[in-house]
Amino acid sequence: MTAVEDRPTTGPATREANPSATAADRPIGFGRIQRKEDPRFVRGKGRYLDDIVLPGMLHGAILRSPMAHGRIVSIDTTEALAHPKVHAVVTGKDLEALNLAWAPTLSADVQAVLATDKVRFQGQEVAFVVAEDRYAARDALELIDVEYEQLTPVVDARTALAPGAPVVRDEMEGRTDNHVFDWEAGDAAATDAVFARADVVVTQEVVYPRVHPAPMETCGAIADYDAVDGKLTLYETTQAPHAHRTLFAIVAGIPEHKIRVVSPDIGGGFGNKVGIYPGYILAVVGSIVTGRPVKWVEDRSENLMSTSFARDYIMTGEIAATREGKILAVRTNVLADHGAFNATAQPTKYPAGFFHIFTGSYDLEAAHCTVTGVYTNKAPGGVAYACSFRVTEAVYLVERMVDLLADELGMDPAELRLRNFIRPEQFPYPNKTGWEYDSGDYEPTMRLAMRMAGYDELRREQAEKRARGELMGIGISFFTETVGAGPRKHMDIVGLGMADGAEVRVHPTGKAVVRLSVQSQGQGHETTFAQIVAEELGIPPEDIDVVHGDTDQTPFGLGTYGSRSTPVSGAAVALAARKVREKAKLIAAAMLEARPEDLEWEKGRWFVTGDPTQGRTMPEISMAAHGTIELPEGVDGNLDAEVTYDPPNLTFPFGAYICVVDVDPGTGHVTVRRFVAVDDCGTRINPMIIEGQVHGGLADGVGMALMELIDFDEDGNCLGGSFMDYLIPTAMEVPDWETGHTVTPSPHHPIGAKGIGESATVGSPPAVVNAVIDALEPYGVRHMDMPCTPARVWAAMQGRATPPV
Amino acid sequence: MTAVEDRPTTGPATREANPSATAADRPIGFGRIQRKEDPRFVRGKGRYLDDIVLPGMLHGAILRSPMAHGRIVSIDTTEALAHPKVHAVVTGKDLEALNLAWAPTLSADVQAVLATDKVRFQGQEVAFVVAEDRYAARDALELIDVEYEQLTPVVDARTALAPGAPVVRDEMEGRTDNHVFDWEAGDAAATDAVFARADVVVTQEVVYPRVHPAPMETCGAIADYDAVDGKLTLYETTQAPHAHRTLFAIVAGIPEHKIRVVSPDIGGGFGNKVGIYPGYILAVVGSIVTGRPVKWVEDRSENLMSTSFARDYIMTGEIAATREGKILAVRTNVLADHGAFNATAQPTKYPAGFFHIFTGSYDLEAAHCTVTGVYTNKAPGGVAYACSFRVTEAVYLVERMVDLLADELGMDPAELRLRNFIRPEQFPYPNKTGWEYDSGDYEPTMRLAMRMAGYDELRREQAEKRARGELMGIGISFFTETVGAGPRKHMDIVGLGMADGAEVRVHPTGKAVVRLSVQSQGQGHETTFAQIVAEELGIPPEDIDVVHGDTDQTPFGLGTYGSRSTPVSGAAVALAARKVREKAKLIAAAMLEARPEDLEWEKGRWFVTGDPTQGRTMPEISMAAHGTIELPEGVDGNLDAEVTYDPPNLTFPFGAYICVVDVDPGTGHVTVRRFVAVDDCGTRINPMIIEGQVHGGLADGVGMALMELIDFDEDGNCLGGSFMDYLIPTAMEVPDWETGHTVTPSPHHPIGAKGIGESATVGSPPAVVNAVIDALEPYGVRHMDMPCTPARVWAAMQGRATPPV
Repeated sequence: MTAVEDRPTTGPATREANPSATAADRPIGFGRIQRKEDPRFVRGKGRYLDDIVLPGMLHGAILRSPMAHGRIVSIDTTEALAHPKVHAVVTGKDLEALNLAWAPTLSADVQAVLATDKVRFQGQEVAFVVAEDRYAARDALELIDVEYEQLTPVVDARTALAPGAPVVRDEMEGRTDNHVFDWEAGDAAATDAVFARADVVVTQEVVYPRVHPAPMETCGAIADYDAVDGKLTLYETTQAPHAHRTLFAIVAGIPEHKIRVVSPDIGGGFGNKVGIYPGYILAVVGSIVTGRPVKWVEDRSENLMSTSFARDYIMTGEIAATREGKILAVRTNVLADHGAFNATAQPTKYPAGFFHIFTGSYDLEAAHCTVTGVYTNKAPGGVAYACSFRVTEAVYLVERMVDLLADELGMDPAELRLRNFIRPEQFPYPNKTGWEYDSGDYEPTMRLAMRMAGYDELRREQAEKRARGELMGIGISFFTETVGAGPRKHMDIVGLGMADGAEVRVHPTGKAVVRLSVQSQGQGHETTFAQIVAEELGIPPEDIDVVHGDTDQTPFGLGTYGSRSTPVSGAAVALAARKVREKAKLIAAAMLEARPEDLEWEKGRWFVTGDPTQGRTMPEISMAAHGTIELPEGVDGNLDAEVTYDPPNLTFPFGAYICVVDVDPGTGHVTVRRFVAVDDCGTRINPMIIEGQVHGGLADGVGMALMELIDFDEDGNCLGGSFMDYLIPTAMEVPDWETGHTVTPSPHHPIGAKGIGESATVGSPPAVVNAVIDALEPYGVRHMDMPCTPARVWAAMQGRATPPV
Repeated sequence: MTAVEDRPTTGPATREANPSATAADRPIGFGRIQRKEDPRFVRGKGRYLDDIVLPGMLHGAILRSPMAHGRIVSIDTTEALAHPKVHAVVTGKDLEALNLAWAPTLSADVQAVLATDKVRFQGQEVAFVVAEDRYAARDALELIDVEYEQLTPVVDARTALAPGAPVVRDEMEGRTDNHVFDWEAGDAAATDAVFARADVVVTQEVVYPRVHPAPMETCGAIADYDAVDGKLTLYETTQAPHAHRTLFAIVAGIPEHKIRVVSPDIGGGFGNKVGIYPGYILAVVGSIVTGRPVKWVEDRSENLMSTSFARDYIMTGEIAATREGKILAVRTNVLADHGAFNATAQPTKYPAGFFHIFTGSYDLEAAHCTVTGVYTNKAPGGVAYACSFRVTEAVYLVERMVDLLADELGMDPAELRLRNFIRPEQFPYPNKTGWEYDSGDYEPTMRLAMRMAGYDELRREQAEKRARGELMGIGISFFTETVGAGPRKHMDIVGLGMADGAEVRVHPTGKAVVRLSVQSQGQGHETTFAQIVAEELGIPPEDIDVVHGDTDQTPFGLGTYGSRSTPVSGAAVALAARKVREKAKLIAAAMLEARPEDLEWEKGRWFVTGDPTQGRTMPEISMAAHGTIELPEGVDGNLDAEVTYDPPNLTFPFGAYICVVDVDPGTGHVTVRRFVAVDDCGTRINPMIIEGQVHGGLADGVGMALMELIDFDEDGNCLGGSFMDYLIPTAMEVPDWETGHTVTPSPHHPIGAKGIGESATVGSPPAVVNAVIDALEPYGVRHMDMPCTPARVWAAMQGRATPPV
């Protein structure tokens, strides 16, 4: 275990792994090198979906419901069809004829591709126009005449299960309420018993409101159906091309080998690009109907109003402890608003995702949670957004409850956490809801964050400021994530489990290609995965191409989300490269006329033990593998390997975050003055990319804590349909990040890496909210819900109920 | 061994393998199904190189030498560069600056990309113009002013080694003559000893003239160099994309992983599309220089005058026998005209290719050959043309010599062959020049051909006609080919050996894809390889996609030529599919809770021995492999396999051909009245495709025998530069083919297949020429050289020297 304060990146990237680093802290494959994809991106040469223009391509647009709940009386498309540039108008009736009106989602639900009987949320897809250009398609939408009979919507999840509530999903046979599922984890009786004998119990309703991933690029698709070959090429903004291919094969009846899903450069995913949106299917239908490629790209408002939302959890949290500050148990009941359709919440076998990691980083005697999901007349919810499904909510709840407990006990929140951490010797640690945490050493991580922040000095400063009437808050969050979704037996998407493939192929001249089932949405896969191969084979990263995002070119796998890429595909890549290395050993032995067991590996070269002059480099071995030498028995003439990796367990990265805020007592405006983030994601590959991931996630978390909210009025109208209404942080709202790291490798991952993509998004909101509430201590504020907008903070200071925003 | 007269294909293809066929004659993977590629081809939806149009694409044209031999005094490109549509003009001097003026060929030679010092053949590349369109590029060629000093050319190979002959390749340090190589095979002393004691020795100079493969599509390339990624995408009409990629990496200095070679639909190869032509490299240079894609496509005249030629062998053949007709030995000295550059003649370690198969199908005591290669001022020669390098020449020589011997002995040529065949019990048969024939059973094949032809009846008819002064000829050819170029140790292309890779991947829903290193030029690979997988995995051929011709999507391999695809890649595919099947067995066992050793395979399904109701189909197994079940230890979650196959030996298909001709005594015009072809290519996959290959090759052979010739005048001007001058057969010149087959599987090939692509091209010319000479028997004609044009036949009848054509 090494604890290191990250130095800012200045000067050119060093090509050598830091020779003074300890073994555990040694970055992989030349470490802090510049990203291979950046020459393309910084020159504006990325190729995003909307950059793709196919010959003869038409353009689609979607007519959407203006109301949250209504019965469709009639749809008249006559005028739209008469538009001279319109090639086709598709309605739900047309799709019914094709048996495509309803499509399975990645969860156990179905979703209307185009509404047939009713509209169930504002923005729901009602009709699809295909026209010569985007402008004509949008114009023609206004020529479609839809008559609705307005119905009372279910907007508040708290009322969804009330007797007499309107039934959102009444198309389902025998459905008379809005109940989606009930689920529990942990031992209720044992937890109740612990609570009964606890000295202190703190209870609080904690709401994680509905937010949106708001990626830079909206969603879109281009479908190109070739009637001669019967082959569908589908360009999509997707994080999961292979799963989509299989799903399309099942849904649309196009054989799987006749479907190619291409995910080009993607401008941000964060979970928003996991699901299959109606627009994708409509583009396919449009292409089949017109015989031409059809492009459909959302505008910003469509993306914000209709694509899958995250969170929307109303959590009643309870924490039990002794008077001395030993935390004994946690429990919670959750009401989960899933909107009108379950989109992508439950590809796991747990309908509440991984929420049961809500036991946090603490050694507890018991824990229990229940989650009840409900349908409402809102856009499909329950998506993963920069977290392994529901981990963000879990971490937020427990870290809020720990702060409430510290407040109740009159104890410093850092001290309370330090007293209750799972101890290093307890790993692998079985928590009380069924997880086995792979590895951890929490105290040094916490201590590094406190040292970097100057925690004691901050508390002194806070006391002085309070004495002057200034509102300074210090917020702590210590999180443990569960990421790297797998093993395959935990998941089930239309029969598919969670495993990911990687192929490594070394060309004759010693250059290599890596083919991955996972796809980058900006995370730097082209660099990171080349570095893993570089580490294993000694080939420089620039000599390794990374291919992804094309089902025709890559092995099968479940895709990128839940920080899976490095924990799952990173393992597959490392193991495939090791297979190549072992094969290279046999060939080198033949070349050197030595026994394989007499060879040693170093820096891309097999050599005879004791005689380093007798060796063969990877390019030499590769040319021989493809060459004319006699190969050993059972070795065929390539240096290729494929591995599909099913992780034996998830990985459990963790971190300690400390946020310092100042609150304006006159306006309630919150300024994040400092943010210290110490992350432990196990073995680190490229520290620069890791820091970039952390920086982005921290901004994300600050945004959720302070400004982001998708709200609805009482009629179910979405109030967050533009960036004027849905605020996201800019460089003005965030401080210079102070990052550090510790390294506790995962014991079951081939290179010990745990994944870092979502840590900061998961870990930072409680630190910010805890800091705001800490700042408001002089006003007796015990809790307030996100986002901590000036109006809400000011209301809290006045002891008033939380205003909408 | 089964001997079958093929029935004509009528009615719809049957989807079931013929249930009454014997085991050896059972076709593979549903047998006679229609070709999967034909819906594309017959609807005009094939995508050939010239169909590809890239955004911003420019067009290149090549200025060619008007003379066979000349010194370049100066090149003035000023006017061409001033053409408003011209983007670049490239000369040899420009290439010298890039170190690209000379490029290595697939043999041990180099070839001028653009002439610098001298032009060495008529049509040699001198300058390259890149312009907005093809028309402007061709116009601008006329604006380039080249001053030449004309030199005396070497045109006749017989004079190339004469003292004082002009030196073609004087750019080579210390080169003072036109000698390319000397090579021999067999035991000279032993052969001389046998000849010395033979009763009968027949000697004849036999010329196989220079001919051209003349594929339907000419050669071309589109180079698209992306300066941002540093990646070159090169669309080429090539039979060997991977070898080209490696060569380009070495020649052009572009790293191998940054080169993608795509070989789209190809309109015929026949060896013409193996080499790297200067135009390909010029397209690359053009794209790098202009920053835009550059297309270059030959016109017909360029193809006929400058791309690699075949044959051009002057062979002094000798055959020794006993008076009773036991053939004892053969020997020959060959003078091989390789033109100005060795292009693709010698990727093997034998500079005369596989010529030493000239011992034919006969059990000999000794054999010896020498081959001397020379440079002349002709277009690069020595290419393989629908034969494993030089097999066509070898078969032609021995089958002519056997007929001459029969004539000398007064013996029926069929009888002489039957007496001398290698006997079935002698296989594997080591011939006297180093080959080991894998399997054969020649007599039944010969007898079937004789039976189909009604041989005895034909001889009676001939006798009657001769009595009436009519000229009827019956020609026999019995050939043994050596195809399936490998093993890897026999070859060396810039360090690359001969092996080919295949990947089989089964998608979750049970559809599959096969990826191949070999590429179709019309042979029906998309069907044949799908059938091999269908046979092994029980997946219907229509559920299997075959991907080839794209180095980014396929495993490494040496490509399609020498009938390699089925013997080499077919083996790789079968073995990869068997790996998948074995893996499927382990997964099925886990699903069935049975031991793998208790399972049996039948028709795409593993089931429990003794309980056929307990089984799992491939789609079920595949979904499980990608699904959520617990997999057996050591089995990862895919049904993918890759095999690179290095054959232990070549394969030796054989056949008996009988041709019946009528010669017009007044004009010398030859009519091929009947042609019986019985082929044995081992195990047959799709009989319809095999018959198509045979039909095409027979037409090819009739063309060479009767009309095809690339000739030169004394100044080295090519006389065959258009289809007005270079005649190829049409439907008018060929009879209805009568085909039959025997099946003698190759013992070392996984499915016993031997390859059929070139048999008819190799085997038919001697049958036709033997028939013509047989017809001319009343005129005392013992031999005449191809092509047997009316003028030549008439001259032979008059006992006059052979006129040019």
